[in-house]
Amino acid sequence: LLLYYLSSGLSIPDPRQREALIQLELSMQTGGQMVLNDAEKQLDAHLFKMKQEEIMRADFPPAMHFFKARHLIRTSPIFSLLQKMPKGGALHIHDFAMIDVEWLVKNVTYRPHCYICFTDNQSIRFIFSSRSPKPIPHCSAWTLLENLRAKTVNTTDLDHSIMGNLTLFTDKDPETVYPSQDVVWSRFEQAFYALWGLVTYAPVFRDYYYQGLTEFYRDNIMYLELRALLPEIYELDGSTHNKAWALKTYQEITRQFTADHPDFFGARIIFTVHRGVNATVMTGVVEEAMTLQRDFPDIMAGFDLVGREDSGRPLWYFRDALSLPVERGVTLPFFFHAGETDLEGTEVDQNLLDALLLNTSRIGHGFALLRHPVARDLSRKRGVAVEVCPISNQVLKLVNDMRNHPAAALMSENHPVVISSDDPAMFGASGLSYDFYEAFVGFGGIRSNIGSLKELAMNSIRYSSLNPKQQEKALALWQRRWDKFVSENAF
Amino acid sequence: LLLYYLSSGLSIPDPRQREALIQLELSMQTGGQMVLNDAEKQLDAHLFKMKQEEIMRADFPPAMHFFKARHLIRTSPIFSLLQKMPKGGALHIHDFAMIDVEWLVKNVTYRPHCYICFTDNQSIRFIFSSRSPKPIPHCSAWTLLENLRAKTVNTTDLDHSIMGNLTLFTDKDPETVYPSQDVVWSRFEQAFYALWGLVTYAPVFRDYYYQGLTEFYRDNIMYLELRALLPEIYELDGSTHNKAWALKTYQEITRQFTADHPDFFGARIIFTVHRGVNATVMTGVVEEAMTLQRDFPDIMAGFDLVGREDSGRPLWYFRDALSLPVERGVTLPFFFHAGETDLEGTEVDQNLLDALLLNTSRIGHGFALLRHPVARDLSRKRGVAVEVCPISNQVLKLVNDMRNHPAAALMSENHPVVISSDDPAMFGASGLSYDFYEAFVGFGGIRSNIGSLKELAMNSIRYSSLNPKQQEKALALWQRRWDKFVSENAF
Ligand SMILES: [Zn+2]
Ligand SMILES: [Zn+2]
Repeated sequence: LLLYYLSSGLSIPDPRQREALIQLELSMQTGGQMVLNDAEKQLDAHLFKMKQEEIMRADFPPAMHFFKARHLIRTSPIFSLLQKMPKGGALHIHDFAMIDVEWLVKNVTYRPHCYICFTDNQSIRFIFSSRSPKPIPHCSAWTLLENLRAKTVNTTDLDHSIMGNLTLFTDKDPETVYPSQDVVWSRFEQAFYALWGLVTYAPVFRDYYYQGLTEFYRDNIMYLELRALLPEIYELDGSTHNKAWALKTYQEITRQFTADHPDFFGARIIFTVHRGVNATVMTGVVEEAMTLQRDFPDIMAGFDLVGREDSGRPLWYFRDALSLPVERGVTLPFFFHAGETDLEGTEVDQNLLDALLLNTSRIGHGFALLRHPVARDLSRKRGVAVEVCPISNQVLKLVNDMRNHPAAALMSENHPVVISSDDPAMFGASGLSYDFYEAFVGFGGIRSNIGSLKELAMNSIRYSSLNPKQQEKALALWQRRWDKFVSENAF
Repeated sequence: LLLYYLSSGLSIPDPRQREALIQLELSMQTGGQMVLNDAEKQLDAHLFKMKQEEIMRADFPPAMHFFKARHLIRTSPIFSLLQKMPKGGALHIHDFAMIDVEWLVKNVTYRPHCYICFTDNQSIRFIFSSRSPKPIPHCSAWTLLENLRAKTVNTTDLDHSIMGNLTLFTDKDPETVYPSQDVVWSRFEQAFYALWGLVTYAPVFRDYYYQGLTEFYRDNIMYLELRALLPEIYELDGSTHNKAWALKTYQEITRQFTADHPDFFGARIIFTVHRGVNATVMTGVVEEAMTLQRDFPDIMAGFDLVGREDSGRPLWYFRDALSLPVERGVTLPFFFHAGETDLEGTEVDQNLLDALLLNTSRIGHGFALLRHPVARDLSRKRGVAVEVCPISNQVLKLVNDMRNHPAAALMSENHPVVISSDDPAMFGASGLSYDFYEAFVGFGGIRSNIGSLKELAMNSIRYSSLNPKQQEKALALWQRRWDKFVSENAF
């Protein structure tokens, strides 16, 4: 390796040396060391041709906002190949943004006993109730949606407007609708409040998760690690269930889904809490998390904090609570969001280093990692993978052109990364294929290849919370599906 | 260094270890090892406060397009400090975009014998001539500007419209005016054609350069390396001068300017040719360059190719011509533009590696360097500095938000970089202060400090084409001015 470097100097450039350096650089990227069989090489040649055509298109989708690029991506032959590709696991997905919001509107809001109210700030709230529900502050009186629809001339418009409240996706110009990070985050939070009453209703909670697994399964994902708030789940009579119930429900439905779909490997839950809480509350939540981890070791993968980093409390503020498991010698793996920010050098910008000091298993986003050479080095040396969510970062206004996404640099030297979609329903995406498209076409350009895709898929198992034995089994299952995919698409 | 890494593991994070890692990271950045005296520390504390206030502003200038941010930057106390700061040398500046276009319009176009014509594609052309000039294709008949002004009711409007043709700067929404790289580059080239007839007229050629040195000198820059096309310069009677004449003129005026301003160190010329030429033409140009380098070793610094990389020929295409100096054992230092592209993995994207293989002394832009770990490593190990031109990259649509500029990552680990302004007049900037602002506030965030500024200024001398003895002299001169600046502004 070093030979190449040393032989340079005041001489005419040697084409063989040049070629060796180009190959050296290619071999350094994600998947660069992957040995390919003949069928894979054939598929790779095919992919290379498709990419060359893609890059020649007047509108290059990775250079555009996803809301404008989505219809272009949908017609891309690379995208349809990525949809068919077995992508392994989705390791960074949030509980209530798994499924296209159309399902929520067309299915869930048409169920009986569904009430709606309209907030002062032009959002909506829902509740299912057998009786007329109690009014809530800053919201109109509750209306039975069934009655409202009966009185409405154009229910399609109504449904459309409900849908618009449950997602950030819009047909309008996204730059105009979301001029700043503050605006887009506030709309993001409003959308969560809007769907809250729907998805925390026990029957919907179950169906939503089963439906979510279905959508990921259809996108050829075989495993899921879901960041879940485990909120209070309610019944029609107003009675409620606790966190353990929610976790057990996830476990049961995962088992049922896996039984129904034998080539689906399973799912695990990362329990999450909003980073807006104070230290005392956090201590209680960590205690709860340790109990859940002890009681449900199969389904529970670990713990994380959610919510916008820039406006929430930094990890270091919670250091005492987050040190409890180690202090007590209790296992509670961490999967911290960190570095989803461009506030360089502020307190929040220390989250990356602090996540690593708190021994995180992976890093959610790690968008700021390039600006933190020590954290970057630690993440690499310890094999702490970065969960890269390209579309999320773009919609939440951290990056404009995907080619400038820091993960392009990380992938150019095979930094441990996995690709995920964060909150696909919020962004008008689904599964992982759109994010794989951005990563494959946008980050890697012409250079990333079938080896990159293979390594990304394998990373999603290798860096999962599964134990070594489970990983081996999952990899074997994935390999069978991968070989089938390659043989069906190489020509 | 490694100790910090190794002592981590399954334990409660140690605040002292954390602080050590934070300090380690800070010490790795550009200027992180700089030893500061008391006055510098005082100024640094002052700068830190100013930055905190700057970051709290609702509109954060580095996150905005420069055309929209300029008026905000002008009111920033950090900016006025950066204007006063002795910034050392400007190493990446092009010959005909040194001065505010207002000077061209208000001074040059008011000189006698100035003709204008209007092109089919809504641009303009100029020529000075003692006789009525010959018509040129795709342009209206030549009109004496003096006569046109006499007939024009509102000459302010006319001047304004001429000015608009000579720069990319606009008060309108830059995203709308320049929707794509193709559009902005084509307007960029049109602006050059428009000013061509003005600046290649011998008396203007001289005055332009003197005026350019003045503007940089006023911005507290003490040294310049100018990329110059050395075009055919014409006189009023249509007679012309060759490259040697142009180079000698640069030398004479530099001497005169330095005599007039003893605390200005000087200037050198990097002879440039457009990368649109073919291999045969390039061979001839390189021969010429070698002759010029031999005949004018004091003023001539070396050789470079200009024009948009994406649409021009890659360096490797010119490898035979560019190998001539080494083959003949003749000195011709290279200062190649390379990696001013986001076409990842294409032929043009190899320019970075090829520039290094051709033994370039510095890299112009190197925007794509993060995606080329081998080139990045070579550039670092060989001390081949990257000439970072933030505003140019933003206006030419490589990056939107300066915080995502790859140089932020490069500076976080003290990669050899210098800050320059490329074509300030084209971008509505001047000197280096605007680009220093973007680099200091945008790339470094809260973390970059007076040490970073000091190292950037010193880099501009250390990585200049000056010989060691000259560098020593220049550094001593800079140090005197720096100490004065610090003592006047530390309080
Ligand atoms: Zn997330
Ligand atoms: Zn340039």
